[in-house]
Amino acid sequence: MTDAPPTLRWDADLDTLVLLDQTKLPGSVEEIVCRTVEDVFGAIVRLSVRGAPAIGCAAAYGVVVGFDESGDAAAAIDRLAASRPTAVNLFWALDRVRRVLEASPADVRDALLSEARAIEVEDREMCAAMGRHGADLLPDAGGILTHCNAGALATAGDGTALSVLFEAHRRGKAIRVFADETRPLLQGARLTAWECQQRGVPVTVLCDNAAAAAMAAGKIAAVVVGSDRVAANGDAANKIGTYGVACLAARHGIPFYVVAPSSTFDLSLASGGDIPIEQRAAAEVAEPFGSRTVPEGVDVWNPAFDVTPAALITALVTERGVVRDPSTQAVADHLA
Amino acid sequence: MTDAPPTLRWDADLDTLVLLDQTKLPGSVEEIVCRTVEDVFGAIVRLSVRGAPAIGCAAAYGVVVGFDESGDAAAAIDRLAASRPTAVNLFWALDRVRRVLEASPADVRDALLSEARAIEVEDREMCAAMGRHGADLLPDAGGILTHCNAGALATAGDGTALSVLFEAHRRGKAIRVFADETRPLLQGARLTAWECQQRGVPVTVLCDNAAAAAMAAGKIAAVVVGSDRVAANGDAANKIGTYGVACLAARHGIPFYVVAPSSTFDLSLASGGDIPIEQRAAAEVAEPFGSRTVPEGVDVWNPAFDVTPAALITALVTERGVVRDPSTQAVADHLA
Repeated sequence: MTDAPPTLRWDADLDTLVLLDQTKLPGSVEEIVCRTVEDVFGAIVRLSVRGAPAIGCAAAYGVVVGFDESGDAAAAIDRLAASRPTAVNLFWALDRVRRVLEASPADVRDALLSEARAIEVEDREMCAAMGRHGADLLPDAGGILTHCNAGALATAGDGTALSVLFEAHRRGKAIRVFADETRPLLQGARLTAWECQQRGVPVTVLCDNAAAAAMAAGKIAAVVVGSDRVAANGDAANKIGTYGVACLAARHGIPFYVVAPSSTFDLSLASGGDIPIEQRAAAEVAEPFGSRTVPEGVDVWNPAFDVTPAALITALVTERGVVRDPSTQAVADHLA
Repeated sequence: MTDAPPTLRWDADLDTLVLLDQTKLPGSVEEIVCRTVEDVFGAIVRLSVRGAPAIGCAAAYGVVVGFDESGDAAAAIDRLAASRPTAVNLFWALDRVRRVLEASPADVRDALLSEARAIEVEDREMCAAMGRHGADLLPDAGGILTHCNAGALATAGDGTALSVLFEAHRRGKAIRVFADETRPLLQGARLTAWECQQRGVPVTVLCDNAAAAAMAAGKIAAVVVGSDRVAANGDAANKIGTYGVACLAARHGIPFYVVAPSSTFDLSLASGGDIPIEQRAAAEVAEPFGSRTVPEGVDVWNPAFDVTPAALITALVTERGVVRDPSTQAVADHLA
C-alpha cells in the first residue's frame, strides 16, 4: 500500500524502537532510532510520534528502551508518563507495562517487550475492527470531513477515523475525504492528505475555517474524527477545533462520528470537563516554519485539544461496535 | 498612535499613489509606489492592499494613476474592476469615478483626483462613526473575538470592526481582542495583532479552530467582524471562516456584530447566495511561507470568503447607526 516505513517498529537488527519522524512529513521520510528514554520522551513531546494509540505503543516500547539504557524500567515509566497529559492511551499502555513489571517476571526485558508487542498487535486489530464497524455507518458516496490525523500515522494499524474511511473506500463507496489542515501543526494537510494520497483515496485539503462553508455548500455528508480521551459519559477530547466542527455538523444536520479504541476511554472521569487539556508553546502558532507571523510580544492562546460533548456525537465507534447517542449508561454497557 | 505609514496615501511629492505593502507585515514595513495601473492591479490581487474599503479607495486613486500613465481613465476603471470579485466597495468606488469621467469635466485629472480624495475622506469619517455606534453595543469588559483584519489596514481610517474595538478601548472599556489568525494569509495574526499592539489594546492571537473552545471557556463576550459585501436582506460576505464563527456565536449565545460602511451594501442582490465568491490559488494553503505542507498533487479548496446569513447577525453597524435583527425591510429603512 505504501513504501514508507511504519509509524513505529521494534527493529530486530538494532533491537530497539524506531519511529517515523512525522514532523518531517510529507517533505521528507526519516526515522528516529531511540536508544534512550529521552529519545522516546522527546519524540512524543515534539510530536515526531503522535496520535493517542501510537503514543501508547511508543511509550510501551520506550520502557524497554529505558530498561536497556539503565535497567530501571520504573523510572522510564514515570518519565514517559510526563510527556503529554491528554491522550489517555499513554497512561493505559504504561499501566499495562507497570503491571508486568510489578509481577516480577523472571526475564524482565522479555516480559516488557512481549507486553509492548501485545499492545501493538492489539492496536492493529482494533484499528481493523473500528474500520469495519465505522464503514457500515457511512453513505455510499459523498464528502467525509475529518480533522487532524487519526490514521495509520496515529496508530500501529490503519488508524481510527481513517481506518473507517479506508475501509469504506475498499468497499467501493465513492467517498472524498475533506481534510481540515489542522493548525497549528497541520497534521491534516501534512499527514492525512499524505495517507489518503498513498492509498488512492480522493482527498481535498481545506483551511480549518472553511469547514463551515463546505458544509453550507453541501459538500459534507458526514464527519469522522478520532479522540485522545473519552470520558465515562461519552464526552470526547480531540485535537483543537474538533468541538467547533461538531457544533457546525449539528447545525447542518450532518452526522458526527468519533472513532476510538476502548483504550481511549477513561471511565474514571465522569465528563469531559475533567480531561486535562495540554497547553502548548506559543511559537507553534506564532512562528510557523520559522517565519514569524504574530508580532513579537503579542499573547497567543494555544490549547492542543478541546472537548466535544456527547450530545453532539451521533455515535462513538470502538473495536467492539457502535454506541449511538452516547451517554454514561450506553458507554458503560458497551464496555462491560 | 503609530509611526507606520498609512494604508494608502496620495503622495504630494511623487504625485502618485503609495501603498503600504501588507504582505510584508508585521516583519517589515515597506511601501509600494504605484506608477501604472498594473502596479495597482497587482497590489490588489496580491493583497498588498486589502480590506473592502481600502480596495475601493486604492482603486479610485488607481484610476488617476492610469490616467497619468496612458490618458485612458476608462481603461483603468475596467482593468481595476477585474482585480477582485467579492468586495463591492471596489465597484462602488469605480462607479463613482466613472460617473465623474462621464460628466466630461474640463480638467479630467483634477476631477478624478478630487473624487478619489473625497472617497478617502468619507471613508475615514465613516470609520469614526462606525466606531462610535458600535462601541455603544459592547460590554464594559470582556473578550471580543474578531476574524481577519477589519482595521486601519483595511480602510482609509481606523477600520470597521476594529474601529469599534479601538473606540471601546478609548472609552475605558476593559476589552481584550481575541484575533483569529485567519488562514490562509493570516491577516488576524499579522495585521490585527499588529494594529492592536500599536494602540496598546490587549490582544491574544488564536488559531481559527480554537474559537469554539474560547467560547466554551467563557472567554468571548461578543464577536465583531467586517464585511466585503452585504446583500439587501442583510446576509454578509466576509473572509472565509466568518460564517463558522457566526454559527458558533449563535450556539454559545454570544452577540455577533457585522460592521461595514454603507458603501459595502449591494441592494441589487436579494440575498447572500448571489454574492460572487472569489476562489484563490491552492498555493496559499499548500505552501505557506515557501514551505510545502500539502503533498504535491493533492486537491485544495480555497474560497476567500463565505456568507453569513442575516439570521445569525445580531446587528449590522454602519456609519449611520445600528440595524438590529437585519432583514430586507430593516436594511432598506436604514439606508433610505
